[in-house]
This record gives sequence, structure tokens and C-alpha cells, in this order.
Amino acid sequence: MKPITKARMAIQFCLGMVLVSIAAAQEISPSPTPTPTPALYSPQTLSELKQLQQAALKSDYAYRQVAHLSNNIGPRLTGSAQAQKAVDYVAAELKALGLEVQLEKLMVPHWVRGEETAALVEFPGMAENTTQKIVLCALGSSVATPAEGLTAEVVVVRDFDELEALGKDKVAGKIVLFNYHFDKQMAAQSRAGDAYSQAVKYRSDGATAAGRLGAVASLIRSVGGAEFRLPHTGQNDYKPDAPKIPAGAVTAEDADLIAALVLQGTVRMHLVLTPQTLPDAPSFNVIGDLKGAEHPEQVIIVSGHLDSWDLGTGAIDDGAGVAVSMEAANLIQKLHLRPKRTIRVIAWMNEENGLAGGKTYANDHEKEIANHFAAMETDGGAGHPLGINYATKPEAKTFFEPIARILQSSGASILNLAEHPGADISPLTKLGVPGFSPIQDNRYYFNYHHTAADTLDKIVPQELAENAAVVTVTAYALANLEKPFPR
Amino acid sequence: MKPITKARMAIQFCLGMVLVSIAAAQEISPSPTPTPTPALYSPQTLSELKQLQQAALKSDYAYRQVAHLSNNIGPRLTGSAQAQKAVDYVAAELKALGLEVQLEKLMVPHWVRGEETAALVEFPGMAENTTQKIVLCALGSSVATPAEGLTAEVVVVRDFDELEALGKDKVAGKIVLFNYHFDKQMAAQSRAGDAYSQAVKYRSDGATAAGRLGAVASLIRSVGGAEFRLPHTGQNDYKPDAPKIPAGAVTAEDADLIAALVLQGTVRMHLVLTPQTLPDAPSFNVIGDLKGAEHPEQVIIVSGHLDSWDLGTGAIDDGAGVAVSMEAANLIQKLHLRPKRTIRVIAWMNEENGLAGGKTYANDHEKEIANHFAAMETDGGAGHPLGINYATKPEAKTFFEPIARILQSSGASILNLAEHPGADISPLTKLGVPGFSPIQDNRYYFNYHHTAADTLDKIVPQELAENAAVVTVTAYALANLEKPFPR
Repeated sequence: MKPITKARMAIQFCLGMVLVSIAAAQEISPSPTPTPTPALYSPQTLSELKQLQQAALKSDYAYRQVAHLSNNIGPRLTGSAQAQKAVDYVAAELKALGLEVQLEKLMVPHWVRGEETAALVEFPGMAENTTQKIVLCALGSSVATPAEGLTAEVVVVRDFDELEALGKDKVAGKIVLFNYHFDKQMAAQSRAGDAYSQAVKYRSDGATAAGRLGAVASLIRSVGGAEFRLPHTGQNDYKPDAPKIPAGAVTAEDADLIAALVLQGTVRMHLVLTPQTLPDAPSFNVIGDLKGAEHPEQVIIVSGHLDSWDLGTGAIDDGAGVAVSMEAANLIQKLHLRPKRTIRVIAWMNEENGLAGGKTYANDHEKEIANHFAAMETDGGAGHPLGINYATKPEAKTFFEPIARILQSSGASILNLAEHPGADISPLTKLGVPGFSPIQDNRYYFNYHHTAADTLDKIVPQELAENAAVVTVTAYALANLEKPFPR
Repeated sequence: MKPITKARMAIQFCLGMVLVSIAAAQEISPSPTPTPTPALYSPQTLSELKQLQQAALKSDYAYRQVAHLSNNIGPRLTGSAQAQKAVDYVAAELKALGLEVQLEKLMVPHWVRGEETAALVEFPGMAENTTQKIVLCALGSSVATPAEGLTAEVVVVRDFDELEALGKDKVAGKIVLFNYHFDKQMAAQSRAGDAYSQAVKYRSDGATAAGRLGAVASLIRSVGGAEFRLPHTGQNDYKPDAPKIPAGAVTAEDADLIAALVLQGTVRMHLVLTPQTLPDAPSFNVIGDLKGAEHPEQVIIVSGHLDSWDLGTGAIDDGAGVAVSMEAANLIQKLHLRPKRTIRVIAWMNEENGLAGGKTYANDHEKEIANHFAAMETDGGAGHPLGINYATKPEAKTFFEPIARILQSSGASILNLAEHPGADISPLTKLGVPGFSPIQDNRYYFNYHHTAADTLDKIVPQELAENAAVVTVTAYALANLEKPFPR
């Protein structure tokens, strides 16, 4: 998942309003034929939506999919053999479900992690001939240090203002550590997206800022909540006109250690980061269509991203999103339902370090944009869903209220007007395609996000099924809406 | 800290009784001259104990000590340069406090960690030419694999019974994984010591059991509560008559992964562990005496262990214990008090992988055992203390009640009869020396125990000060008891 500040703020505000909204929602009678919007969904559709919801809550198909992606295939960094294996696997599964499957080709960046070690080699009070280990990882797109590493004094700043205040004289030749703290209290109160957005700019822009002042490497305090000596990777974005210097993330503990020692005297670090950027490589979005019976040309996208970072096995980011999207197709087929519009399952490639999948799709399908009725993406983990984010005109809300009423029984009745419901679908939403995503519990998401601990055990099967219910019901409802909503 | 099953069980039982005990304690009037035991402590002593308690709660000396040990010196594995630096540092600090300081020599094991990497090289569903990384660490005393590693099929067992049921045919030539789960629910309910005792026998005895059946290596699921892809080290104890095979600990996530894959087909692992056992080396217990005014020959030991495991910086295990022991001497000196008996601060060496410090001391001081009035050790982290464990005759309890009344104001009023109050002092308690330790909140202790995440940030300064208050008040009270308690 990438930072999408405003959307996250909107989502988070919404999460803060849960109790109020649920209380209000109680007053709405969950009638099988809701009176306020009788023309939007047929009685048959409403009945099918309830069947789909119940089937989703009982199904383990989505869990088995994310288990296979995480455990049997493993990390799926763009350009890797595992990413290709995942493409083949999902394509085969969607074919087995009876979908029309296409692999849509795209060119992707191919960055590979190398050695990543560091140690403090000079610091106040140290025992002679010792060093102190620093736990870190390279950030995506980072250039390498020399193979034998580099050694330099460390300067610690909290933010860009402190860096600028130091100036070239005090930064040139040094390793800069941006010690910006992820706001754990904010995350604990379900505003994790805001906490992430505040901190992540040092991950994306820190190396550029430090490089411009002559630093020899740039490190950040890991962007995330937990403190178990766990580094968080993620994409670094060099600005084209800035010198490229190695970019890494130390753990929260190592940032604290360095910050404490720097106050006492000179701290020097030996740093080895040997990632490589290989030539761009071909890869694929996996696209599976469940053709609509009445308007096959009109498309509802249901999606997650298939690539993951390479430290963990990409269970919550974003095997879960792919799995619940596959589940939507699985359940519709299993119940022998036929949507009026086409439901298009997409497993995107390269969300994490380039967004090539989303961009290429929007480009390749530009002429059919008007037929993209809606695009949905799940990329916030697998936490209990509270409802639906919708990025449409505000007045469209009444069109979604019957969906919310159905989802109320599994606690997902909130409708939240959002600006950016997903990174991969953002090239489409920018072109006017209405976007949707589940509102997910993200209080613990950033404890594991982009770390080695993003593994299958972080997914609670029942909560994954709840997400599948939201995605399946929303997709099928949109596919069967009796008239287009305002856009 | 090492497993001490019965004592831990007793402690844990006590923790379970907190509410009841605190409620009962409320009925005792906190009078400055308690009537039930007027002859035990003089009014002056009781007044001084309250001064010490208040001073401890306000002091940052202990925190500064553990900060220096953790941050400036770092990991202090027995035999390392950092362990020696810590010896010198604590000796100098105790001298600066005005104590009579001795370095008492001992010979210690000298095991050093090497490379430790592993990967699954064959498993169901894998992408061709890929592997899946396994995060692990070597266990203390482990022998090495060949430098280039070894590759073998993995068999997973839950416990010794399952291993024995497999027998030599199915174990010989394999890597055994003991997938015994640390009971997190038990730990959450403050019975972490019991959870530890159940699981830790696979760490100590797993390699011996697997080696006897011809396994080529033995791995355990890490013994601890948190799941952040964090391996927990600790001592492996080869039995003399068993083949020595490499012994490691994988993270909980990696154990889950392997266990899931083994159910689906053959899993083979490449394992590299290159620790070395060097010749035994000289090291020291640091001993600082604050001489008693009336009975200088009678000694109250106040102690923690100075060595630590090497993955983290040994903040909670056991920099904290050394720091609060040093604080006792600091406060008594700062308030210009003079104990009647001698208070002996000891920073033990080699608790983690041999107990050479505790054993050597008991041996060297055997003739003076009768003059060891009491021995106290703090080795359960730095969590909020609830009272005092006492390993004496049960009828001695009334002697400690005035101490508990004073500690009640910081929530530490529980008196718990324990069997084994500390590992380093266990050679003394076996010889009849009464033992004491603070009862500490251990609900989160085993999340960090023996991991890279045992770092300074895990200590809440105020909780450390509360532990210092318990240790200081208890030590000074025992030093000034007007008559010996039953032993």
C-alpha cells in the first residue's frame, strides 16, 4: 500500500465515527425489499446479495488462496520468479473458475535486494575492538554502497527542517538518519493512515534531500508501529536532479540507540547495502472476466495487487486483496449467478515499486474507460471491515445504501466518501471511473507492513471472509444496479 | 533468566492472586510504628526505609546505569570484550559510590555466534530456482554445520513423544523441528513463567533427543510470545552421551510456514550455523561491599547478572537487575545511611550460559556461608513490581510484613513464598541462604527475552525505579533487622 493522504484522512475520520454511524444505522429496518430506493436493485438481486454474503462468510476459498500465495510461492517482488509464478497460479485458478482470462503485458522495474548490514564502529563508551550491530534494510530503488561498504559519521535529524538547518557543511560526507517517529497513538486510535502519511515522506524523499546536501547515505527510522527490532522497507523515490545515495531503514530501536549515542559524542557507522537495479523486465496483470448477461461491455473491476515486498511473504500486503477478489468470482460461480454487467477480477503487478500495472492498464484501456462502471481495490490488509469507501459524486450515496443494509449484519454498514480508494485503480479514478474499497481495521496493519513479519499468521480467517463478503456483495450489486449512479 | 519451574509456578500463582492480596493488604494500617512486630525494626530504620523508598522512586540513577550498559557497551555475552568492559565499568561505578570493590575471578565458557542463515530449497508449489528464507538463530553451545551448510529434509514434531513415535528410521539424516507453541494466553494472564517452563525444555534438550535418533540438526520454534519474525536464542544443553548436532531456533512464523508445507509434501532446508566454542576464558564477578556498622561480617547480597545474550543489548535481561542493585548502594550512600549489616552488591558473570559466576562464588565463599544473612536477585526484567518473593521458612513471613507495608504505597505489598528466587543465587539458597527477589510483571517479558529486541526502550523508567525501591528497601531492612529471622 502507498500513502494516499487525503483518502486515508477521510477513511480514518470515518473510522472515528464508527459508533455514531452504527448507532444511526440501527434505526434502519433491514427489510428484504427496502422502500426508499425500490428501483435500484431488483428483489432477485437483493436476495442474491444476501446469499453471496452468507456464502462469503462461510467460505475458506479466499484464505486458501492467500495461504498458497504466501506459503507456497512466498515473497513476490516485481520482476522475481515468484511474481511470475503467482501470475501463472492466479491465471490458472481464474480459468478453473470459468472466467475468460487474459495476461496483459507490461514492462516493470526490476530491483533486487542484496546484502544489508551495518554496525556502529565508533561511539562513546564502546569496548575496544567491538562494534554494535545495527539492524536495517535497503529501501526499494536504493543504489548500492561499495561492495565493501562505506564508513562515515552519522548525523541525526528529526525532519527536513532540521536537515536544512544543518546545511551542507554539517551534512556533506555524513550518513543522515531521519529519526521521525511513526505516531503509535494515532495508529492505535484507527488513524494509522495519517500516521503513515506523516512519516512516509522521509522514506520517499529523504535520500533526495540528504543527497542534495552531500550526504553519502540516507537512513530513516522505520515507518511502522511495532518495536521488535523489525525494519520496514518500502519505495524510495529519487528526484531526477538529485544525486543518488544509498537509502535504508533502521529499526525503531536502532534509531533510538543512534540518537542517544549521538548526543554523547561522535558516532561512526559502517554500512553495506548492495541492491541492484536490473533492466526493466516484462510482467503481467492477470485479468479474469465473468461476462455480464445484459451489458457485457460494462465492467466492474474487483482487484488487489499480486506483487509484494520481498522481506515477508506478502500475506496482508496484498495477498489478502487478491484472494478476496478471486473469492468474489468463486462465489458468484458457485451459486450459479450471472451478473448483468461484467465482473473483472484483476491481480495487479508492481503496485509496490512503480505502479506499472495500474498505469499500463489505464493506458491500454483508455478507449473503453466510459464502459468502466466501477473499480474496486482491497489493499489495506485483512482486518475486520467496517463498510465501503466510495469515490463517486456525493449524491450517489443513496445508490449504495441498500448494499450497506445487507452488509450491516457482518458489521460493515458504513458508507464513507473517499477521494482515493486504491493505488492501482488511481489511474482509472483520475479518468473519472468511480472507485470503491472496503474500510478495513488498520490499527495493527503498520506493525507488519513491508516487514519480514507480513506472513499468513497475521490474517484471521474470519476477518478475511468478512472482507470477501464486502467485496463480493459490493461488486455484484454494482454489476446488477438497475440504472447508473451519478458520475 | 533460566527456567526455574517450581519457583516460577509459585510466583505466577501469586501474581494470579494480586487482587485478593491487595484487597487484604488494605486492611493493614500503614502505621509508622507497626504494633504486631515492634522489635523487628527500630523506628529509625522504618523512617530510613521510607526515605529510601521515596528517593528510589525519584532517582534516575538506575536508568542511567542500564542505559550505559545497553547503549554504550551493548551485548555482553560471557567471554566477550563487552562483558569485560561491563565488569570494569560497574567496578569503577561502585568504587565511585564508596564501596569496597573486588573482582572475583572465575573461568567461563566462551561461545561465539557465527553465520546463521537458512532457506527452504524444496517445498510444494515453489517457483523454480527460488528458495524461501527461514529466519533463525543458533542456540548457545550449538556446534556448527559445515561452513557451506547442510541440506536435509525437515520433519516436524510437536513434542518429545511425537519424536519418539517417529523413531530412528524417520528421523535419521533429517532436520528435526520441534514446533512446540509458547502458550501466549497463559503469559497474558501473568503465568508467563509457566508458559516458558513448558516450552523451554525443547530448547535445552531438543538437540540431544534429536541427535540420539540420528538427526543432522535440531531446530525449535522460538520460546516467546511475540510474533514479529523474531528468533529467541538461549542455552542448549547437550547431554554428555549424546551426539552433538547443530541447534537453532526459528521464529514462530517460520515454524508455522514449515509445519504447513510439510503437510503438503517434502520440505528440504539448507542450514548454515557457524558458531564456535573457544577455550574457557577468565572473567569476573564484580563485588562491592557497603560495610555494616554493627555486623560487618554478616552479608546481604543484592544482585543481577552482568552478562547477556548477544542478539540484543541485554536491557531487561539483565542490565535492569544490575542497575537496581547498584541503585541500592547509591541511595544508601546518598542519604548518608549506614546499614547494620554489610550490603554486598554483586554483578554476576555467566548466568545465561553456564552459571559460572554463581557457582564459583558459592564455592569460594563456602566457609562464610553462615554469615550470608540473605541473598537477593533481580532477573525478571523491569516490569512493575508487585511485592517480594521470599525463600525462607514460611514462619519468617511476619519478619517481612513491615517491609511490605512500606512498599504498599508503590503497589508492591505482596509477600510470596517462593522456592527458587534466582538462578545466580541458587547455589547459595541450596546451601541454606535465604533468598529474595522482586515479584515482577512478566506478561510482556517473554516477547523480548533473548532476542535482538531486548533493548533499552523496553524499560519504562518509572517501573525500573519501582523495582529499585523494592530492592533497596528490602536490602536495607534485612541489613537492619534487629534479630535474625527463622532459617
